[in-house]
Amino acid sequence: MDKQNRKQLTDILSYPEDSAGGLMNIDTLLVRPELSLEVVLRYLRYHGHIPKGTDALVVTDRKRTYLGLLPIQSLLTCDPKQLVKDIMSHEDEAIPVDYSSTEVANIFEKRDLISAPVVDTQNKVVGRITIDDVVDVIRDDAEHSLMSMAGLDEEEDTFAPVISSARHRNIWLGINLLTALLASWVIGQFDATIEKLVALAVLMPIVASMGGIAGSQTLTLVIRGMALGQIGTANIRWLVNREVFVGILNGLIWSLVVSLITLIWFQDIKLAAIIGVALMINLLVAAFAGAVIPMVLARLSIDPALAGSVILTTITDVIGFFAFLGLATLVLL
Amino acid sequence: MDKQNRKQLTDILSYPEDSAGGLMNIDTLLVRPELSLEVVLRYLRYHGHIPKGTDALVVTDRKRTYLGLLPIQSLLTCDPKQLVKDIMSHEDEAIPVDYSSTEVANIFEKRDLISAPVVDTQNKVVGRITIDDVVDVIRDDAEHSLMSMAGLDEEEDTFAPVISSARHRNIWLGINLLTALLASWVIGQFDATIEKLVALAVLMPIVASMGGIAGSQTLTLVIRGMALGQIGTANIRWLVNREVFVGILNGLIWSLVVSLITLIWFQDIKLAAIIGVALMINLLVAAFAGAVIPMVLARLSIDPALAGSVILTTITDVIGFFAFLGLATLVLL
Repeated sequence: MDKQNRKQLTDILSYPEDSAGGLMNIDTLLVRPELSLEVVLRYLRYHGHIPKGTDALVVTDRKRTYLGLLPIQSLLTCDPKQLVKDIMSHEDEAIPVDYSSTEVANIFEKRDLISAPVVDTQNKVVGRITIDDVVDVIRDDAEHSLMSMAGLDEEEDTFAPVISSARHRNIWLGINLLTALLASWVIGQFDATIEKLVALAVLMPIVASMGGIAGSQTLTLVIRGMALGQIGTANIRWLVNREVFVGILNGLIWSLVVSLITLIWFQDIKLAAIIGVALMINLLVAAFAGAVIPMVLARLSIDPALAGSVILTTITDVIGFFAFLGLATLVLL
Repeated sequence: MDKQNRKQLTDILSYPEDSAGGLMNIDTLLVRPELSLEVVLRYLRYHGHIPKGTDALVVTDRKRTYLGLLPIQSLLTCDPKQLVKDIMSHEDEAIPVDYSSTEVANIFEKRDLISAPVVDTQNKVVGRITIDDVVDVIRDDAEHSLMSMAGLDEEEDTFAPVISSARHRNIWLGINLLTALLASWVIGQFDATIEKLVALAVLMPIVASMGGIAGSQTLTLVIRGMALGQIGTANIRWLVNREVFVGILNGLIWSLVVSLITLIWFQDIKLAAIIGVALMINLLVAAFAGAVIPMVLARLSIDPALAGSVILTTITDVIGFFAFLGLATLVLL
């Protein structure tokens, strides 16, 4: 390894793994704009090696300043007498070295790229990223949300040893026990009311679980939208309004249905009214919480996919039990 | 469009969208093995167009029988006097046209492919698949699990109108109401017991929710493993055993913790023992159900990501409430 190579390798290792710099290779073929295609073709034949995933050569000046791309297709189909600068494409922007891997993946997906040059802040070419590395990012990003929402490490192997799996998952079960205890404490505040009307204990899981389900739907949608870069500070207000509207609509429908079922089951019109109002409240809170929690967590640099679902269920459980049992205490006692 | 083109287009439209045939393009450059590179290069220049994502030309005989690939790199770096058959690669297998899009994506990921030829049952080349189409499959597959587990259509847009969003999600809320009602019915069977000891109503959500969380972890892991093709009939038995072991380990730990908390909170040793045993039972059932449900659903051709979580919560709710309140009825009354 000569000095220049070693310097390049040190540079590449200094970029964070989840940035454009961490994803890139340094084996980039550079050409000058003033060459003819004939010379480029002769050079390639002499060089004898074209890096994997090369669908274009990178055109730069003497100081590696990025100028544009020379697609391999043009090299093969254009008149060899032409100059690089006359057939190179100028519109393909290079990727800044400090972009996050998720931003890189979004660019590759949007522009259907096979490879793209990477430039530093002085617009000098420092490497290139190929699609096979981006595919791993896309897979990892999408799986990260799925696994994190169940409190699993996406590194967790299906074939990991029992002990290390159990330890990993215990952290999640422990956190969830805390939220379950909080819900139990809320119920405990109303034990006198439950003692007088056991139907409350029978019905209370309905209010909590419907809120949890509705909130999870909003939460999942927002987490996906954020990962895809569709949701940001610009449209979050609009999105919260939209989700609250969906919550009101669904709240009206299901409050009515659950009220009717309660009326038929327990023949108690007061109980039916109480569960209807409590469910309405919980579905509204769920919609609002599901939309707002991931945005707040992201601003605090906490992973929304990991922390979002446990915070949401805590809220829907506590509000669900509190609204239902609290209203019952007010009205029935 | 001439006759041949029209026939090709009819053929391509007849393949299912989520198969290799549905993913492929038909603009494939074919070359014969007996040509020299010089002739191929001249042909390309004359033809003037190379389809996007072409990193290799497909080598076939006169009847389009697949023989191998001629990488563009070899075309650019080898001596133009050489023959295609002398430098073509033979080891790159073509993709059968009836492979599922998920299988295609797995092959592309495993072999880091940019493009691959597609062949019919007679090993005749019918088209080629490029990485940009596969990227969409990878993204969709990974998102499908995430969205389906929350009962969301992956087609559902974050920016869809309120009414259509509300309608979509109502189906899911309706199904979940049925399972919540089933859980309520189970609780209702023990109303006399709860009336005598309200602490049961306070503690019962803990047993159900811990089971639900633990089961979801197993379920998510198995659903991901199945999507990645890591889990099949060959190792499902091993996997169920592994998950049950994790369940036993975690069951022992959390049963003890919850028993101790109950003892301190309610000063009732019988109640502490009952909740410990009930939680142990539910965590074991959750592990078993989380591993087995997706496999059974897949065999019945029902999407595990969509139906799995609702079936799992139904089981952990019903078993959780039944074990806890049933044991309490036996021991305390």
